[in-house]
Amino acid sequence: MSKLVIVGTVAFDAIETPFGKTDKILGGAATYIGLAASKFGVNSAIVSVVGGDFPKSDIDMLRSKGIDVSGLEVIPDGKTFFWSGKYRNDMNTRDTLVTDLNVLADFNPKVPEEYLDAEVVMLGNLHPQIQIDVINQMKAPKLVVLDTMNFWMENTMDDLQKIISRVDVVTINDEEARQLSGEYSLVKAAQKIMEMGPKYVVIKKGEHGALLFGNDDVFYAPAMPLREVFDPTGAGDTFAGGFTGYLTKTRNYSFSNMKNAVVSGSALASFCVEKFGPERLINLSEKEMRQRMHQFKSLTQFEIKLT
Amino acid sequence: MSKLVIVGTVAFDAIETPFGKTDKILGGAATYIGLAASKFGVNSAIVSVVGGDFPKSDIDMLRSKGIDVSGLEVIPDGKTFFWSGKYRNDMNTRDTLVTDLNVLADFNPKVPEEYLDAEVVMLGNLHPQIQIDVINQMKAPKLVVLDTMNFWMENTMDDLQKIISRVDVVTINDEEARQLSGEYSLVKAAQKIMEMGPKYVVIKKGEHGALLFGNDDVFYAPAMPLREVFDPTGAGDTFAGGFTGYLTKTRNYSFSNMKNAVVSGSALASFCVEKFGPERLINLSEKEMRQRMHQFKSLTQFEIKLT
Repeated sequence: MSKLVIVGTVAFDAIETPFGKTDKILGGAATYIGLAASKFGVNSAIVSVVGGDFPKSDIDMLRSKGIDVSGLEVIPDGKTFFWSGKYRNDMNTRDTLVTDLNVLADFNPKVPEEYLDAEVVMLGNLHPQIQIDVINQMKAPKLVVLDTMNFWMENTMDDLQKIISRVDVVTINDEEARQLSGEYSLVKAAQKIMEMGPKYVVIKKGEHGALLFGNDDVFYAPAMPLREVFDPTGAGDTFAGGFTGYLTKTRNYSFSNMKNAVVSGSALASFCVEKFGPERLINLSEKEMRQRMHQFKSLTQFEIKLT
Repeated sequence: MSKLVIVGTVAFDAIETPFGKTDKILGGAATYIGLAASKFGVNSAIVSVVGGDFPKSDIDMLRSKGIDVSGLEVIPDGKTFFWSGKYRNDMNTRDTLVTDLNVLADFNPKVPEEYLDAEVVMLGNLHPQIQIDVINQMKAPKLVVLDTMNFWMENTMDDLQKIISRVDVVTINDEEARQLSGEYSLVKAAQKIMEMGPKYVVIKKGEHGALLFGNDDVFYAPAMPLREVFDPTGAGDTFAGGFTGYLTKTRNYSFSNMKNAVVSGSALASFCVEKFGPERLINLSEKEMRQRMHQFKSLTQFEIKLT
């Protein structure tokens, strides 16, 4: 079975939405990515760091999902990365209230020995220098996927450019694709980003779905229409986890199989937003996942006769 | 061959976008609907009114597309409906600069004798009382589709509620669906609108595609990602014309065939925005339409194996 290396934050989040608010709960890009990828039964390892305040029960939970946590460093006298945010009424925009880097400030990522030969690497949203450090440790990955956000464009653009030039796929949201490329049209934005190095670009549009670009190909997976979006936190990371989990499992990195990976990521993201934090992902059954994939198919597939 | 009745404005538009501006050019909901539906070779008739200032060459052009214009009344000493608008930089919002109702203010629609038994009726965006007048003349249509907009919700809500209760399908954009239903979630909005009478609701999301709701079914057709959106004017009407044109041609009003109709409407709308006004639709070849439909299929279809 092929292997997936995941780097990203493991964190505490405090979230406020129009539906309610949470205390510090489990969060972080690597957490969502790992939980989503675990649905495909692949061998995965999280490379990250937490403080002594991080509950052993959460680490045990990740381990119980088959995730290797030997690369999850614990700094006993440090504090775990903390993010707090508040969503506006439309749920599409959020304001960051607190970002405490804590142990993340001095993080030196170490990929576990048995994962240095992993085929797939998912570089979750994090300081680009850490993403570079991870890639430098890997032997010969077949597919490297990068997720990033506007914060790194504004503060560490040189490092970001470096890592972008070394990956196969960039996943990024629509506003950030526009910011990174300077193009309003997402078609043009994707082209500009591909000119920076990646062969594929996935533009995440939240409730409007996700676009996959590669060369002259384009694929558009809509998002599942939901009665209620309860908490969008982690949806993009969950997408990335479903995307890379599916590709790690199927070991086929063609455009047409990436379509399936986008659909898998979209289906998982549609669960993520149904509850606060990663709760829905943690308790998601195989049967529910299968049903959602069938719903997704009937949502998007049609049988028009073409000549 | 089955018949399609189209009611809506035939107008002059003056349009300004970030790419340029036009003088008074051909416009109006019925114009776009008729041109789009004509691509399916159905028998269609436009019911509308223009003034003596309306060029005979435009009427001839519509006739040359196989559209019956005997229900297009000409008021020799009246002036044609005029709308002028300006799009903002994101092309998703526009400001109306001028709305001169002119001959539309006293319009009494008359459906041509040979079209009273038409199977499909497309009630384009217009005063709801005119839409009611048209429906009252029809013998026994199999499918009545209504398009409307916020202006009528704000000014003639009672009439609008009356006509909504009598149609099979409502097509409406996302913001207007929210306004009409009082629900932010589009799933809930569609349900509320279906409770008003219609069996199906199509929510148009512009560059984000279109959602079709019916009973417990939902279908999501994305919009074709374009390098450039030149002028969005008429895209919603073009969608409605493609939707009803396809249904008139195939005479199958099931949910699964409506999926195909939504795809047809979306494909046609993707042409409409490529040039100012209806120019692109007027000159659209069958071959281009066929190619776009194939592109649309590869844009949205995937082959994941489900268990």
